[in-house]
Amino acid sequence: MRESALPAIILVAPQMGENIGAAARVMKNFGLSDLRIVAPRDGWPNPLAMDMASGAAELVEHAKLFATLEEAIADLSYIYAVTARQRDMVKPVAALGQDSLRAGAGFVFGRERIGLTNDEVVLADCVLTIPTNPGFSSLNLAQSVAVVCYEVASKPKRGALTSNSPASKAELIGLLEHLEAHLDRLNAYANVDEKKPVMVRNLRNMFTRAGLTSQEIQSFRGVIRVLTGTKQ
Amino acid sequence: MRESALPAIILVAPQMGENIGAAARVMKNFGLSDLRIVAPRDGWPNPLAMDMASGAAELVEHAKLFATLEEAIADLSYIYAVTARQRDMVKPVAALGQDSLRAGAGFVFGRERIGLTNDEVVLADCVLTIPTNPGFSSLNLAQSVAVVCYEVASKPKRGALTSNSPASKAELIGLLEHLEAHLDRLNAYANVDEKKPVMVRNLRNMFTRAGLTSQEIQSFRGVIRVLTGTKQ
Repeated sequence: MRESALPAIILVAPQMGENIGAAARVMKNFGLSDLRIVAPRDGWPNPLAMDMASGAAELVEHAKLFATLEEAIADLSYIYAVTARQRDMVKPVAALGQDSLRAGAGFVFGRERIGLTNDEVVLADCVLTIPTNPGFSSLNLAQSVAVVCYEVASKPKRGALTSNSPASKAELIGLLEHLEAHLDRLNAYANVDEKKPVMVRNLRNMFTRAGLTSQEIQSFRGVIRVLTGTKQ
Repeated sequence: MRESALPAIILVAPQMGENIGAAARVMKNFGLSDLRIVAPRDGWPNPLAMDMASGAAELVEHAKLFATLEEAIADLSYIYAVTARQRDMVKPVAALGQDSLRAGAGFVFGRERIGLTNDEVVLADCVLTIPTNPGFSSLNLAQSVAVVCYEVASKPKRGALTSNSPASKAELIGLLEHLEAHLDRLNAYANVDEKKPVMVRNLRNMFTRAGLTSQEIQSFRGVIRVLTGTKQ
């Protein structure tokens, strides 16, 4: 797991290069540099992002590109999903400016118009809302990044736990995929394919919420092997 | 003086319509509506501002247009000048997120590239800085408006004083112009015209910093009449 205590900004499927550039610029304004981009609509690199970044072009050049959110967060241990609205999902919720935030977390922002899907939110440890006018809550993507960067840069953070710290997302997702592969193999969905996405999402949410340590994940993988009578 | 406790956002000579629209949108996101524009570079109305405002077009439509900053702040009693850098000027300084802010104040933002002139900053009661990366402090105009609106909307504000509250800027500027007219008439600059702008700026700064009430302004205008032996 990476050592940096500086937060990462993760843009999921951003549509407009200008917003990527504006996000990079405001990250640099507030002293952040770890920009990650998942499946940008218009491909990568994007000259509009470079133009809009102005003096922060190096953040755009060094942005890390990923095909999936799972890969983008693999080395992080705590993830906030920044959303305008609550989800019908059992998940801790924090309000920006009201609840203290974890140091070194990743902040995940959704697409310009439709935000994050439920399958993406489920991978986060916490839903982070920005308190806005209920009648007009849809913030521009770069403006959302601006207020999160401002808040993160200017306010004291809750420290990450020094012992029993949560495993990396790579370890957690490894466990989940392990479990899901067994369920597939054992025909857990009783041939009702519609059940599968909901069940997977609920399991992922439960395990994410548990905040498992590396040791606990190893133990649980052992449990799965025992339960299934397999060596994997 | 107006009664509203909601802050006003004042953009001085903004260059890009897109930034005016983005500022309007984020104001609405955070529940603000009093947008004032001083001498926009590309005239007014500006279709680019309307486009960028998205669901906040009514803020752009109802924005108040002024020729000078003095007119734009006339009905307000407390003004913050939002600047990236300190000025060589005796003026209180507050840092966004660290010092509590007055309710119902006006927040003045400068031009995209060069910000506010000293003659504009002098009209403010307080310089408001946004804590940024010293190596890259120049925030995009709409991003500055975003973090100020976010902070104003989400944090408790210091109440305006209920008694001895400062006079409106119209009253203060009336006093200053009264005094400046006498100084002109009395040849105070001893025919050295270069002295005048500095002297005017220093006087304006001193009187602004004093936070005079309406009563004190009336008294001082009386003093000026006595000193000059005039009826005005």
